[in-house]
Amino acid sequence: MTHWVLILSCPDRPGIVLAVAGLLAEHGGNITESQQFGDPLSGLFFMRVQVETTVVRAELEPALAELGTRFAMTWSLDVVGRPVRTLVMGSTAEHCLNDLAFRQRSEGLPIDIVAVVSNHTVLAELAAFYGIGFHHVPVTRPTRADAEARLLALVTELDVELVVLGRYMQILSDDLCRALAGRAINIHHSFLPSFKGARPYAQAHERGVKLIGATAHYVTAELDEGPIIEQDVERVDHTRHVDDLMRLGQDVERRALARAVRWHAEHRVLLNGHRTIVFR
Amino acid sequence: MTHWVLILSCPDRPGIVLAVAGLLAEHGGNITESQQFGDPLSGLFFMRVQVETTVVRAELEPALAELGTRFAMTWSLDVVGRPVRTLVMGSTAEHCLNDLAFRQRSEGLPIDIVAVVSNHTVLAELAAFYGIGFHHVPVTRPTRADAEARLLALVTELDVELVVLGRYMQILSDDLCRALAGRAINIHHSFLPSFKGARPYAQAHERGVKLIGATAHYVTAELDEGPIIEQDVERVDHTRHVDDLMRLGQDVERRALARAVRWHAEHRVLLNGHRTIVFR
Amino acid sequence: MTHWVLILSCPDRPGIVLAVAGLLAEHGGNITESQQFGDPLSGLFFMRVQVETTVVRAELEPALAELGTRFAMTWSLDVVGRPVRTLVMGSTAEHCLNDLAFRQRSEGLPIDIVAVVSNHTVLAELAAFYGIGFHHVPVTRPTRADAEARLLALVTELDVELVVLGRYMQILSDDLCRALAGRAINIHHSFLPSFKGARPYAQAHERGVKLIGATAHYVTAELDEGPIIEQDVERVDHTRHVDDLMRLGQDVERRALARAVRWHAEHRVLLNGHRTIVFR
Amino acid sequence: MTHWVLILSCPDRPGIVLAVAGLLAEHGGNITESQQFGDPLSGLFFMRVQVETTVVRAELEPALAELGTRFAMTWSLDVVGRPVRTLVMGSTAEHCLNDLAFRQRSEGLPIDIVAVVSNHTVLAELAAFYGIGFHHVPVTRPTRADAEARLLALVTELDVELVVLGRYMQILSDDLCRALAGRAINIHHSFLPSFKGARPYAQAHERGVKLIGATAHYVTAELDEGPIIEQDVERVDHTRHVDDLMRLGQDVERRALARAVRWHAEHRVLLNGHRTIVFR
Repeated sequence: MTHWVLILSCPDRPGIVLAVAGLLAEHGGNITESQQFGDPLSGLFFMRVQVETTVVRAELEPALAELGTRFAMTWSLDVVGRPVRTLVMGSTAEHCLNDLAFRQRSEGLPIDIVAVVSNHTVLAELAAFYGIGFHHVPVTRPTRADAEARLLALVTELDVELVVLGRYMQILSDDLCRALAGRAINIHHSFLPSFKGARPYAQAHERGVKLIGATAHYVTAELDEGPIIEQDVERVDHTRHVDDLMRLGQDVERRALARAVRWHAEHRVLLNGHRTIVFR
Repeated sequence: MTHWVLILSCPDRPGIVLAVAGLLAEHGGNITESQQFGDPLSGLFFMRVQVETTVVRAELEPALAELGTRFAMTWSLDVVGRPVRTLVMGSTAEHCLNDLAFRQRSEGLPIDIVAVVSNHTVLAELAAFYGIGFHHVPVTRPTRADAEARLLALVTELDVELVVLGRYMQILSDDLCRALAGRAINIHHSFLPSFKGARPYAQAHERGVKLIGATAHYVTAELDEGPIIEQDVERVDHTRHVDDLMRLGQDVERRALARAVRWHAEHRVLLNGHRTIVFR
Repeated sequence: MTHWVLILSCPDRPGIVLAVAGLLAEHGGNITESQQFGDPLSGLFFMRVQVETTVVRAELEPALAELGTRFAMTWSLDVVGRPVRTLVMGSTAEHCLNDLAFRQRSEGLPIDIVAVVSNHTVLAELAAFYGIGFHHVPVTRPTRADAEARLLALVTELDVELVVLGRYMQILSDDLCRALAGRAINIHHSFLPSFKGARPYAQAHERGVKLIGATAHYVTAELDEGPIIEQDVERVDHTRHVDDLMRLGQDVERRALARAVRWHAEHRVLLNGHRTIVFR
Repeated sequence: MTHWVLILSCPDRPGIVLAVAGLLAEHGGNITESQQFGDPLSGLFFMRVQVETTVVRAELEPALAELGTRFAMTWSLDVVGRPVRTLVMGSTAEHCLNDLAFRQRSEGLPIDIVAVVSNHTVLAELAAFYGIGFHHVPVTRPTRADAEARLLALVTELDVELVVLGRYMQILSDDLCRALAGRAINIHHSFLPSFKGARPYAQAHERGVKLIGATAHYVTAELDEGPIIEQDVERVDHTRHVDDLMRLGQDVERRALARAVRWHAEHRVLLNGHRTIVFR
């Protein structure tokens, strides 16, 4: 008996749920979880189903392919809980890597961090503790293209499915953003769209906000404009200096990032244009 | 075209989703929202579907009845957004009535408050402003049975579907609780199961908690033990006296109560033994 | 015995707390609450003290004036809990007025709403229920100056200390903003600085944010840029349309506004340039 | 120039603030932060002051001792930011130790974890990574007294100021609780006073609560009844099984515990009978 997760999207029209339920029933499937959403604005329909069956992938996929063609569907099938091969990029801040690696180890976060890539060496120690390969890839303006090529080579070589930018303080080229479209998650240290760009905590302090936030989003070529997966906030007051905001913010950042990574790895996040559907 | 909401529960087994989807498709239905949950502990399956169709109730109901028999289902069918006929009970505190009546008037809360019943007269003014009939039903130990009989008579007479206890400071008899089972919601002014019984804010202050809460639950004969629909909390600190907790608590109470009433009125709450499924 | 609240700010230097504590002790004062903050950036010191004493205002004020001169202080003295004379402006949405008026009536919010001013007539009914004078002041481009003059006349005539813009959908002139500086609070229906300007919920929906918010701030000539007093957020997901955001947002708006108005009325908010100190 | 933190409590009466401010001014002190609270119920006054001065401890302490005698004060003086020598006890769950050690390393949590004590060996690896001595002290019913003696010996030997029970699954004897009174913090995995005792997540699931919580409190001989320092909650719904609650709960536990430990280490927590004052 395998526990499958199927996600799909297609133009909305009557009969999709019935067709999916029918297909799964024909293959002896018992649906354990199912969520759907029809977006009246985009006219698209989205669905996520978990189903238990003894039928194997080689039998399921052709049936799904046929269904996909009939409904002009984008779909994907995976085994529930399979760890997603993940590469974490960072610079000097350790909290994102520490949090994700710890949750993989102790809280059942379904990822397998196969590499840490950094333009600094600070993260090497943590990576070693968690038994993750560490790759020091320095970046300077002239070497950026080489560094990105090396990253992409690692992605291919290690069969990486998800790249997480855990406070990686370099801007990616448009080409790299496109190459990683839909499989790279960044954590931005503000409640987007407030305080885009550099030094968001300094901007937040200057503006005198009463809540600080963090935003986990897919990486796109437009900086800090990618589809938002998760956001969270924390209350602050006038006594907090910029340094305090940075420290308090780390907690919000890792919380929002961990949720986004979990939902992505559990195939709960579907793209709807520049917004996301999150079937929590 | 009517927009229907169907809720159902039955022993879990393969084929339920397919059968429901099939039935709705046969009747020209387009599913706009669907949620389901199978509880491995109770072995029960729960589902809520919103569906648009031109087919009328007289045609849908027999088909559902047949399906219901086949799967040993409890089910109910309603029109999406139909205001639920509601009776609000209160004593002297006005915040629950004010909040529910205002949300009915201005925020599309799908209830129709058809009566206010109180053992005091304080609420008469608010009821009059909102054009709701006010019924003063004093309660003393010897007259409690009469008072409850009068309430039940009103429930019948006014075709009341939902009774809301908005800080009604009288304990209902077991018989009344049973008569209103599944259609009476109480707001308890603590984060249950903490501080059951009387004076929860005084108990909370005495214990020195750092968060106070409120719990909206279905009324059962066991005091403060009914199935929980919604809970919420608010941060407090050592400077707060009991009076402050009561004032701050009003906000939490009305928030939790309003959500519970909305979800109930939208047929999003299903009973699973002494717990609830809330398809938000 | 009178319970006083004293707030003050001045350039920071050693000896301020001692001088204030000494002055109050000399006048038989017993300090019941005291908060202070020295801002290293602006070099300013802020303090709020509640003190009980039998000494009358005529004796306290000259002593405070002398102290104020010595330390180049801005200060003000009031009686704890005195209701602040408040004018509420609105357009068609009722939730802000309903919330503030209800909290004044039932939750001890220390304001006295002496007038409602609106460019529509929707709020007249609510104002009448709460016994508040309603002033219909229509605004069109050519009559805006007249309308603002009438508002200012009312402010003077009714001895208004605080103007609350409760979803008043007109932009105030720079002159009016200046005339009301520090005594006008607006509720903006977004988590500023996100979604400044018009239709913030539509902007929020378009951007696909996962939390919506509201911001209570002092009105300044720069639109949506005034000092922030309070902010709050509410979780939303992909199923929410713009209309849902507007409805859910009403709850956040009234919560943030009510807190800001309470803190202002309790003299807990001090201006520190374009930011606020809130001694909660 | 040293930055001191002074905390004190004494029977409330006029003149305390003035006396403290006077003493500090005489010693060239510049107050940078000050908070106070008079509890009308206990009649006690509590104060926390941060002050910068060039005066050394040998001069400050006699003056404070004299003041303390005059006002029947309990007081203590420390240097702001000095790391508190901390011993962490745990069993098999790693999240508390991982979180505290990481925050010490990367977020400026002012503790110095000098030992990890456990009745299992799971935590040895993490302790080694963070360079902390690991002490395996197995506990069985007959050896409990020996194990506790060994713990107390370590506390003395290593000059431990704070003991943190980070999901240590053994009940401490009354004698040990008394020996560590006011310097041992436990994290309980429920929103106390709900679900005292064993298996709180199973109890929470059974009761069908909509929020789960965690409580950081000082250890006392009465199980789960010690003074509460901090509480936090997380929303859950009907889809969550007991295992999910345990996993989600880890996040709440470490958040509440980290705040409580920080506030304790920064001398922000004062005992007021069986409740706490937290000068945040």
